[in-house]
Amino acid sequence: MNVDVVVVGAGLAGLAAARAVRAAGRSVMVLEARDRVAGRNLGHRLADGTPVELGGQWIGRTQTEALKLVSELGLETFPTYDDGAAVTLYNGKRTQYADETFGLSYESAVEVGRLQQELEGLADQVSLSSPWSSPAAAELDRQTVDAWLRANTDNAEALAFWGAIIPAVFSAEPAEMSLLHFLFYIKSGGMIDNLVSTTGGAQELRVVGGTHQMSERLADQLGDAVRVNAPVRQISHDDNGVQVDYEGGRITAQRVIVAIPPTLAGRLVYKPALPASRDGLTQQIPMGSVIKVQVAYPTPFWRDAGLSGFGFSLDDELSVTMDNSPPDGSCGVVVGFFEGAHARSAARLSLEERRAAAVATLVKMFGPEAQNPIEYVEQDWMEEEYTRGCYGGRLGAGVWTQYGAALAEPVGRIHWAGAETSEVWNGYMDGAIRSGHRAAAEVLAQLEA
Amino acid sequence: MNVDVVVVGAGLAGLAAARAVRAAGRSVMVLEARDRVAGRNLGHRLADGTPVELGGQWIGRTQTEALKLVSELGLETFPTYDDGAAVTLYNGKRTQYADETFGLSYESAVEVGRLQQELEGLADQVSLSSPWSSPAAAELDRQTVDAWLRANTDNAEALAFWGAIIPAVFSAEPAEMSLLHFLFYIKSGGMIDNLVSTTGGAQELRVVGGTHQMSERLADQLGDAVRVNAPVRQISHDDNGVQVDYEGGRITAQRVIVAIPPTLAGRLVYKPALPASRDGLTQQIPMGSVIKVQVAYPTPFWRDAGLSGFGFSLDDELSVTMDNSPPDGSCGVVVGFFEGAHARSAARLSLEERRAAAVATLVKMFGPEAQNPIEYVEQDWMEEEYTRGCYGGRLGAGVWTQYGAALAEPVGRIHWAGAETSEVWNGYMDGAIRSGHRAAAEVLAQLEA
Repeated sequence: MNVDVVVVGAGLAGLAAARAVRAAGRSVMVLEARDRVAGRNLGHRLADGTPVELGGQWIGRTQTEALKLVSELGLETFPTYDDGAAVTLYNGKRTQYADETFGLSYESAVEVGRLQQELEGLADQVSLSSPWSSPAAAELDRQTVDAWLRANTDNAEALAFWGAIIPAVFSAEPAEMSLLHFLFYIKSGGMIDNLVSTTGGAQELRVVGGTHQMSERLADQLGDAVRVNAPVRQISHDDNGVQVDYEGGRITAQRVIVAIPPTLAGRLVYKPALPASRDGLTQQIPMGSVIKVQVAYPTPFWRDAGLSGFGFSLDDELSVTMDNSPPDGSCGVVVGFFEGAHARSAARLSLEERRAAAVATLVKMFGPEAQNPIEYVEQDWMEEEYTRGCYGGRLGAGVWTQYGAALAEPVGRIHWAGAETSEVWNGYMDGAIRSGHRAAAEVLAQLEA
Repeated sequence: MNVDVVVVGAGLAGLAAARAVRAAGRSVMVLEARDRVAGRNLGHRLADGTPVELGGQWIGRTQTEALKLVSELGLETFPTYDDGAAVTLYNGKRTQYADETFGLSYESAVEVGRLQQELEGLADQVSLSSPWSSPAAAELDRQTVDAWLRANTDNAEALAFWGAIIPAVFSAEPAEMSLLHFLFYIKSGGMIDNLVSTTGGAQELRVVGGTHQMSERLADQLGDAVRVNAPVRQISHDDNGVQVDYEGGRITAQRVIVAIPPTLAGRLVYKPALPASRDGLTQQIPMGSVIKVQVAYPTPFWRDAGLSGFGFSLDDELSVTMDNSPPDGSCGVVVGFFEGAHARSAARLSLEERRAAAVATLVKMFGPEAQNPIEYVEQDWMEEEYTRGCYGGRLGAGVWTQYGAALAEPVGRIHWAGAETSEVWNGYMDGAIRSGHRAAAEVLAQLEA
């Protein structure tokens, strides 16, 4: 079989790329390792039929490519429930708040704000297109976020805040990423408030029925051009074209777009082997660690108590919760996250132990009514063979300056897409779509007649 | 084809394991991706026939397993040439010295010694068998070596010293590894003096004819049980046994020993997929970066000037040199290293530019006679598809405590060997041999009759 372009991976990046290739009148084939499309998006229905998302689910208003695609595909959004007070747990104390303090003491909230301002001042100087060429790149990249925070504050509560909010955004610990990566990422998403906010931020909107429908509808449009259960194992490339071998077949093409996380892209066999600069990069972009849980109740009872369902614990393994009930509020669903080191330790528990840990945190946040959920569903993204962690890949100290230039740079006829390669909303669905469009444009500019 | 044990990788670790398996009366097959054995050891002859090693070459007197193997295989050692003064280049200044100062100013040498003592005091507390369980493991692992150094001294010359000696040992930069990893590694090799010294340290002895002969002789003993040009692609495993698929064939066995670097082990396909704890580890043990060069002259002229050939530059990309002449001194050979960030930047130069950079440094170190070598040979280990960097894999901030337990822990019928998995002389030939013996013992204890 021969096409103009092969795409590896039927997540949003790969499908968006394939759609753009086909729209230009070129033939395309998407190869997907799983038995389903949508990658890090995954739909699920609770026992009563309520749709919940086991993977990426929220869209913010500045994620314009994601919103455009939702609309083009005939899907609809609705606002994430965000009325009422939020709850923070810290040092055994429960604080309810409805302001910008995150429930911290006044002094700590001011200190968190000061650090945020400093970080965003540094981020302002970072180049999104080539972080390694930013002023002071070497200095920013040699530090971990943890080291920067400890060098810049002694406030234990502020440190605990950052130690929980950073895993909430990155599914990784502050010591596990370079300051330059952190700064690049927050700037890529429009700075910290935009990343962590519900209304006015990245969690503002949900898709009726689930985000996985975006990929499903794209795949429907592509029809036979999407092949599932087709894990790619080898890409051979030379001046004349590429040959892609997958379990069960082989396709030749002019170009290939690899739209899977860098760490997984590094596991394919390339003939000839990739240059060391690219290979070295894929040796060190580990995926984040997260177990996402959905806890269902007969009603969203916390709303009656004036609570939004947003919970943030600096004390517990389940560190962030949000209201994830259906739009009509016909039942109550809390979504919660074990993230970073918490995800890795929670993964060593039994399902029952994890469930108990999650419920115990919800009881502290929302009261005794949280004690008896009617359903508990979880998704461990670390165990997913064809994702190997969420939300995305991160770069540790030194990696951006030493290897970053290889992240999206084509190697001959091989082009790279995926949320990790986007300059805008890196790591998000919006960034994935943008990366697919960018890679498609690269390829289309090079295709022969 | 069916054997008791399949070994993946015919470096020292795999071959030592295979020999032990066979010595116990069990059948074994070693599969090697390359067209040669010896992995990170690689023999070469200069135009005049002088043997030089393009990979690992030195053995220290406390590397008892390596010495034992050399002797058992009928090979001989000879002392690395180490008479006369060493040279250090720093801030444009050349210093010749024959003491323990590394040519630093008195004040800086004292400061380097103080830092060394502090580091070794910390290393004393690290557990070699389970670094993650060391006292203060979390605190040591959250810091990079770079952060620790900067927090503990303001002496620019001392910082420059560590900034050059650490890449010389690790082929990686101080910011690219956790303090816990650094401490584990130096303790594993008997502390810093042992690692960096020629006489009395890890560089004391050479093998007549080259270290690759160790692997070649082991492979000769194993005969048909070593298959080259056989890159392994997939390992299937269940309660009944393992099946190893390589390019060109398939072997079944009771157990498999994977004796390749962790980052490469992570690229194999496992059915079923490996647990997340193991997979996550292999996402973040990048290999070091080094280009090793041999520069040959008609005579070892530096000896006449009272120089040992040991050169150390804090100013140049080629940062470490040693006398690598044959035992009879019939010609002069200097071995030099581009390491860490220097290796990555030097890799972007042309061969001619790299050669010129290396020779320019040698002229500064050893005088104008160094200007006109009769031969220049280099080996870029980053470009080697089946090693992907040398000297070995390193763990960045946070990795030991979050993932270290999976480094050598078997997964069902899959066992792990390789220099990175050794408690003693981790990263060295001696550690590779020890790891092979350890993995063989694990397997032999489990084999059915």
